[in-house]
Amino acid sequence: MDERILVLNGPNLNLLGRREPEVYGRETLADIRRRVEARAQALGCQVAFEQRNGEGELVDLIQGLAEGWHGLVLNPGAYAHYSLAIRDAIRSVGVPTVEVHLSNVYAREPFRHRSVIAPVAVGVIAGLGPIGYELALEALLARIRG
Amino acid sequence: MDERILVLNGPNLNLLGRREPEVYGRETLADIRRRVEARAQALGCQVAFEQRNGEGELVDLIQGLAEGWHGLVLNPGAYAHYSLAIRDAIRSVGVPTVEVHLSNVYAREPFRHRSVIAPVAVGVIAGLGPIGYELALEALLARIRG
Amino acid sequence: MDERILVLNGPNLNLLGRREPEVYGRETLADIRRRVEARAQALGCQVAFEQRNGEGELVDLIQGLAEGWHGLVLNPGAYAHYSLAIRDAIRSVGVPTVEVHLSNVYAREPFRHRSVIAPVAVGVIAGLGPIGYELALEALLARIRG
Amino acid sequence: MDERILVLNGPNLNLLGRREPEVYGRETLADIRRRVEARAQALGCQVAFEQRNGEGELVDLIQGLAEGWHGLVLNPGAYAHYSLAIRDAIRSVGVPTVEVHLSNVYAREPFRHRSVIAPVAVGVIAGLGPIGYELALEALLARIRG
Amino acid sequence: MDERILVLNGPNLNLLGRREPEVYGRETLADIRRRVEARAQALGCQVAFEQRNGEGELVDLIQGLAEGWHGLVLNPGAYAHYSLAIRDAIRSVGVPTVEVHLSNVYAREPFRHRSVIAPVAVGVIAGLGPIGYELALEALLARIRG
Amino acid sequence: MDERILVLNGPNLNLLGRREPEVYGRETLADIRRRVEARAQALGCQVAFEQRNGEGELVDLIQGLAEGWHGLVLNPGAYAHYSLAIRDAIRSVGVPTVEVHLSNVYAREPFRHRSVIAPVAVGVIAGLGPIGYELALEALLARIRG
Amino acid sequence: MDERILVLNGPNLNLLGRREPEVYGRETLADIRRRVEARAQALGCQVAFEQRNGEGELVDLIQGLAEGWHGLVLNPGAYAHYSLAIRDAIRSVGVPTVEVHLSNVYAREPFRHRSVIAPVAVGVIAGLGPIGYELALEALLARIRG
Amino acid sequence: MDERILVLNGPNLNLLGRREPEVYGRETLADIRRRVEARAQALGCQVAFEQRNGEGELVDLIQGLAEGWHGLVLNPGAYAHYSLAIRDAIRSVGVPTVEVHLSNVYAREPFRHRSVIAPVAVGVIAGLGPIGYELALEALLARIRG
Amino acid sequence: MDERILVLNGPNLNLLGRREPEVYGRETLADIRRRVEARAQALGCQVAFEQRNGEGELVDLIQGLAEGWHGLVLNPGAYAHYSLAIRDAIRSVGVPTVEVHLSNVYAREPFRHRSVIAPVAVGVIAGLGPIGYELALEALLARIRG
Amino acid sequence: MDERILVLNGPNLNLLGRREPEVYGRETLADIRRRVEARAQALGCQVAFEQRNGEGELVDLIQGLAEGWHGLVLNPGAYAHYSLAIRDAIRSVGVPTVEVHLSNVYAREPFRHRSVIAPVAVGVIAGLGPIGYELALEALLARIRG
Amino acid sequence: MDERILVLNGPNLNLLGRREPEVYGRETLADIRRRVEARAQALGCQVAFEQRNGEGELVDLIQGLAEGWHGLVLNPGAYAHYSLAIRDAIRSVGVPTVEVHLSNVYAREPFRHRSVIAPVAVGVIAGLGPIGYELALEALLARIRG
Amino acid sequence: MDERILVLNGPNLNLLGRREPEVYGRETLADIRRRVEARAQALGCQVAFEQRNGEGELVDLIQGLAEGWHGLVLNPGAYAHYSLAIRDAIRSVGVPTVEVHLSNVYAREPFRHRSVIAPVAVGVIAGLGPIGYELALEALLARIRG
Repeated sequence: MDERILVLNGPNLNLLGRREPEVYGRETLADIRRRVEARAQALGCQVAFEQRNGEGELVDLIQGLAEGWHGLVLNPGAYAHYSLAIRDAIRSVGVPTVEVHLSNVYAREPFRHRSVIAPVAVGVIAGLGPIGYELALEALLARIRG
Repeated sequence: MDERILVLNGPNLNLLGRREPEVYGRETLADIRRRVEARAQALGCQVAFEQRNGEGELVDLIQGLAEGWHGLVLNPGAYAHYSLAIRDAIRSVGVPTVEVHLSNVYAREPFRHRSVIAPVAVGVIAGLGPIGYELALEALLARIRG
Repeated sequence: MDERILVLNGPNLNLLGRREPEVYGRETLADIRRRVEARAQALGCQVAFEQRNGEGELVDLIQGLAEGWHGLVLNPGAYAHYSLAIRDAIRSVGVPTVEVHLSNVYAREPFRHRSVIAPVAVGVIAGLGPIGYELALEALLARIRG
Repeated sequence: MDERILVLNGPNLNLLGRREPEVYGRETLADIRRRVEARAQALGCQVAFEQRNGEGELVDLIQGLAEGWHGLVLNPGAYAHYSLAIRDAIRSVGVPTVEVHLSNVYAREPFRHRSVIAPVAVGVIAGLGPIGYELALEALLARIRG
Repeated sequence: MDERILVLNGPNLNLLGRREPEVYGRETLADIRRRVEARAQALGCQVAFEQRNGEGELVDLIQGLAEGWHGLVLNPGAYAHYSLAIRDAIRSVGVPTVEVHLSNVYAREPFRHRSVIAPVAVGVIAGLGPIGYELALEALLARIRG
Repeated sequence: MDERILVLNGPNLNLLGRREPEVYGRETLADIRRRVEARAQALGCQVAFEQRNGEGELVDLIQGLAEGWHGLVLNPGAYAHYSLAIRDAIRSVGVPTVEVHLSNVYAREPFRHRSVIAPVAVGVIAGLGPIGYELALEALLARIRG
Repeated sequence: MDERILVLNGPNLNLLGRREPEVYGRETLADIRRRVEARAQALGCQVAFEQRNGEGELVDLIQGLAEGWHGLVLNPGAYAHYSLAIRDAIRSVGVPTVEVHLSNVYAREPFRHRSVIAPVAVGVIAGLGPIGYELALEALLARIRG
Repeated sequence: MDERILVLNGPNLNLLGRREPEVYGRETLADIRRRVEARAQALGCQVAFEQRNGEGELVDLIQGLAEGWHGLVLNPGAYAHYSLAIRDAIRSVGVPTVEVHLSNVYAREPFRHRSVIAPVAVGVIAGLGPIGYELALEALLARIRG
Repeated sequence: MDERILVLNGPNLNLLGRREPEVYGRETLADIRRRVEARAQALGCQVAFEQRNGEGELVDLIQGLAEGWHGLVLNPGAYAHYSLAIRDAIRSVGVPTVEVHLSNVYAREPFRHRSVIAPVAVGVIAGLGPIGYELALEALLARIRG
Repeated sequence: MDERILVLNGPNLNLLGRREPEVYGRETLADIRRRVEARAQALGCQVAFEQRNGEGELVDLIQGLAEGWHGLVLNPGAYAHYSLAIRDAIRSVGVPTVEVHLSNVYAREPFRHRSVIAPVAVGVIAGLGPIGYELALEALLARIRG
Repeated sequence: MDERILVLNGPNLNLLGRREPEVYGRETLADIRRRVEARAQALGCQVAFEQRNGEGELVDLIQGLAEGWHGLVLNPGAYAHYSLAIRDAIRSVGVPTVEVHLSNVYAREPFRHRSVIAPVAVGVIAGLGPIGYELALEALLARIRG
Repeated sequence: MDERILVLNGPNLNLLGRREPEVYGRETLADIRRRVEARAQALGCQVAFEQRNGEGELVDLIQGLAEGWHGLVLNPGAYAHYSLAIRDAIRSVGVPTVEVHLSNVYAREPFRHRSVIAPVAVGVIAGLGPIGYELALEALLARIRG
């Protein structure tokens, strides 16, 4: 009932809604936060919502999950495609993780087709826009509770 | 309120729940159908639920969407990795499609990391198990209604 | 004077003219059939004109050419890029084959640049639109009669 | 003593003996069936012998093995090189399978050097001609009985 | 009615008919010229017919098309596989181009399977022998007039 | 007349002039700053000049350009070859960017031949030494003013 | 009736049965020798049975086949994957050869999927365990007598 | 003060300004010549300005630099991507060379990302339009005088 | 006698001993620090021992070695496989470096087989567990003193 | 206390110290033997020290470890990069092995970056010169005793 | 006795002896001509000796061999690595050809390791310096006379 | 006048003249020995002529060249394509080496196009048949004496 979930966003996601709306849509990260918090309330769990541009800072936050957190919803942004440090952090803390991408990365440049993080995640949601965060939260809870 | 969505399953998904439960889980395809129908009712849309082993038959069913259907939730099974015929069918009928995989294909054999269908889909949900179908339905409706 | 030629169309070509006209043009498959039949009459040969979505069904039809047919004009659609079964069928029956594509496959996605069927065909016509079928028929007859 | 084994042949194998004898030899599929049935009698097991051109139909037949069959001798023809659907079907039903090829696929075109089915089979026999079916049957029985 | 089309031949095509007839056939380039001129007369257009061994000279001739020409039938010979300068010339003058190859390049050495020119052409005709030039002319006119 | 341009330097460029002068020359980053400021004055624009070792910090600075800056001269150092986060930041803020490298990266190790940033930049200047910064500034202004 | 066949084993096969039984089974090379000799007697041929660790020694033994031998059953062990010297020896002496592997090499590390010897062999038997040697002998005789 | 610099342009650059202005801009080669000559005068050096479509002619001109020239500004056009003959000519005469491209080749087709000439040049300027020629001249002089 | 050596650890190594002990063993980073300090004392040198998750911070620390340090023992963690910024920092400061990995990276995922740092290091020690740090220290001193 | 360790050297290592000292240093193999024996005495174990040029002979010696030996320090020389036979021998006897290279193979030709032996070794020491043998011995003992 | 042999040199070979002597030696092309003529006289054949920078001109000269020439010694320079037009010319005229390179191309940049001309030549001599021309002449005559 | 040259032949060359004469010609190795000895006498040098099938034995013989030999003519047979041990032996003893192949390896299977030995040889002669040995001897002497 009171699972603690971190919703973590990687580089450039703080610019959401203001830049390249044809790719990422018009909702801001604050809008997404509100969506996620509303859904969390409906689902009966707690969420923290963070964004960082630095790889090392994202690793720090993920390592912190070892202290009593139950799950991670991660939009790694561009780090999805090369940050083995984030991959290792997720595997090290062993907290179930769902990777989310707002856009359909498989329909964009070839370097976006491959995520080094996906193999250590529970699963991936891509291309569904802001609702993808909500669905990731629901799936994560289903798994934790299940 | 009365969108018509096809939930379509590819080869070997009729064996779900009875074979390789460590990979695909213990729910049968009938169980998933019930989940999907329940969620469809809650969301206020109509769903048809089908499974085929043949590539040509899947193409036939997808072509049929041109007659008054609003969306496709597709678990293409192994065809995800090579069926350009299914890819072309989806693009031809132009109906928004969400690709679903029960298992985390990115954590399995390398040939499963690449979907030839994903680039013509709206998005992809992978690794979240049976609830993935429900989430795909919800995301698809959000997009159609949105 | 009375050669029997099969003009065979692969998956999704039944949708021609109605979908993606910017890629495949506005003529329907029925329009193309009329073109081909008119040209056949002018050239003094018989044609049968078929379309199938299923790989196995296409193999069945090609195998049937062993019974008294003289040539094959084949638009394999997406199967051009992976159907080794169709390739083997063509080689097995040994009937001269011209591969036709409506669009210029070499100017589209990289996976469309390679045909597994072309190496066992007499030759290839791509990108010339519906008249490509007529030209294939003329070339095939020139070769058979030649 | 009364194991039930399916000997299943893929696309174009119905043309055996009549076409390309320099590659596939002069025995027809009926000849091979007689060989296999004779050897089955000598070895004390039952065999069913089938051929299909369609990938989906082959998947259907393999799925049927779950109902009381003990083994599969499969000549997948060209599907060996790309049918992940057949691969998944074999793995799903979990029946021991020996893959057979009449010709030495490793001495032919590069695309024939790789079988996507071999990794889920017990083993492979290639290049030994029609006797390869008999040997596959013997090996399969040795394993089942062993 | 009086379209002006250039039929341009690349390196070594001046040796046609005298060398390697098993690959390129027994017609000389002069024979092909006669074919093309006859067909041009039948179709009601003007053709010029040229051959050059030098890449720079071929670029020069293609650039000249900007002065009142309507189309190009190009057999680039070996330059098809690497002359990006010819590719850029075609794109620069913007005249519709059909690429022709006498032999089925897709059934020969791997380096002949890829044309750097095809992506900027309207389409490609390969493997149909000398009649391929006539068909290219007809297709080009159909497109120009169409 | 009063465009604001950021000249931003990536990892290890603070060591310029003291280390590996045979590769990077003998000018220090302070020397380059003076050059750039002199040229900026001559050209009539304002420049800020920064250096950071951290990828996240570089992303932060680039994001800041959205607040009233007109252009970016970026020497990304080694991040040129893998920082998709910096690439996304540049594309997100949409400020015209010229990528500069002191050494001729195309004459060094293969991994230095490819920049993931170049495709989202206006252009690239490489191998011209410290004057490259000045030229980048001039080109950027010409484009902004032009 | 009195064909002379060499059954030759490559490196590390002398350790069979004592090491890694989960991969190679529990029979020793002496056990396999007995199997092979029994089957040879049943089939009416003579066999010699050898094992060597050295590539040059295997080449020497294969060269010796030119003196009155009729066939070779070869388990090349790890040399299958790189010994072009053994490949050339087999082709040079021109004696029909069947390649045998105890384990299913196609289900193991990628480097074991490719045999440089298979293209010069009659055929390959892999994954069937010790009975594979017997079947190879039978197939080889069928071909020699054939 | 009186350095002699050759500014040399490769194939299709004579069409500048008239064709594909969205890629190459609206200035003609004559406009660029005027720019370059003006900048040369300002910088106090002599320039010759040439364009050739033929690879051999470009090699001839580059070889001529051995006779008393001090530098080369080269826009090799499409030859940048494959002319090893031009590369060898530059290395042979040993005259410092700056490679210029009008468009940002790194943002275009993959084959334009790689220059075989860049490794033997001093450096590269790409994507900056006509001013790129001026900047190349300035950088070359700085290096020669420097 | 009083060489100053930095022992530097990259991302996630602060979790050592608590997570994934089957891969990384049960010693914590503090345990390893004690080992290293004891060995340093025995060998007669000074060591500093640090860990950072951030790439930029690791670059900062390595740059600091220019101020009077004699060597670097570096466990770059996941950055080994992509941090060209760390590679450049090591080469820039020119301090002899030994790369250490606790686990045998060559027996793990393919992306761990390649280190971009190894080419600029003196050498590599991998797979030997915590004693690897001690041995690296000894080897580094032997080289510095040698 | 009385572990028996084999220190085994592959091809061309008998030439150490006399040839290419800039790559391999000035110590001879006899010098290294003395180092290793001294360290063995200090560590309280027995060592045998061998060198062979032949792959088969190296396999023979490794197989012999099954008779009462506790560990292997192996410098496989060039065989590191292709001898799958040595790899299989090590895995077969199951004796813990440390691979040693005198030079930093990762800083040399690309073919030296990959060892087919490393994946079956405990670990690797490369680039540390002769002391690398001593450290390998110490690490191996620590593991055996540990 | 009076065979006519063309010794043909490709681009940049006219600069021999004056440029890059560490790669190509100090003999000029005139020196090599004298060598070749002296050896021709000793061997009793006639030689013509030519050099061209243009690919088309080299093709022209090779085509001319059809008129009564017996052999070609060709140093294609950089064209060796990409001129499929020269390759086709050699195959078309069918005159035996020996390819010569002064330097050891296999010890230089990777792009020089592959010749597209070698597969249609009788053979290749590389790295032996000017005497390579003489040896090529001798070998060619031995073959023609042989 | 009395240089000592070793002419060394690799695996399967002892079969020359008896096997595959369409590839390797009809001369035996003894015939070639006589040719080489005659040419050696004419050139005024001593030759030893050897053949071995084993890689280790070839390495042994090459190492022996350090004792007063002046050059090596090596036909490595199939080892050319993978024996890094032979490559290292040649580089270690530092004796000038010419690599010879009887057949044109560049016109055969792709794996024969690459020699790992060529980069450490003076040069290569391929495809010229037995006279290739004589020419290699002459070139080697010219270099040694030159």
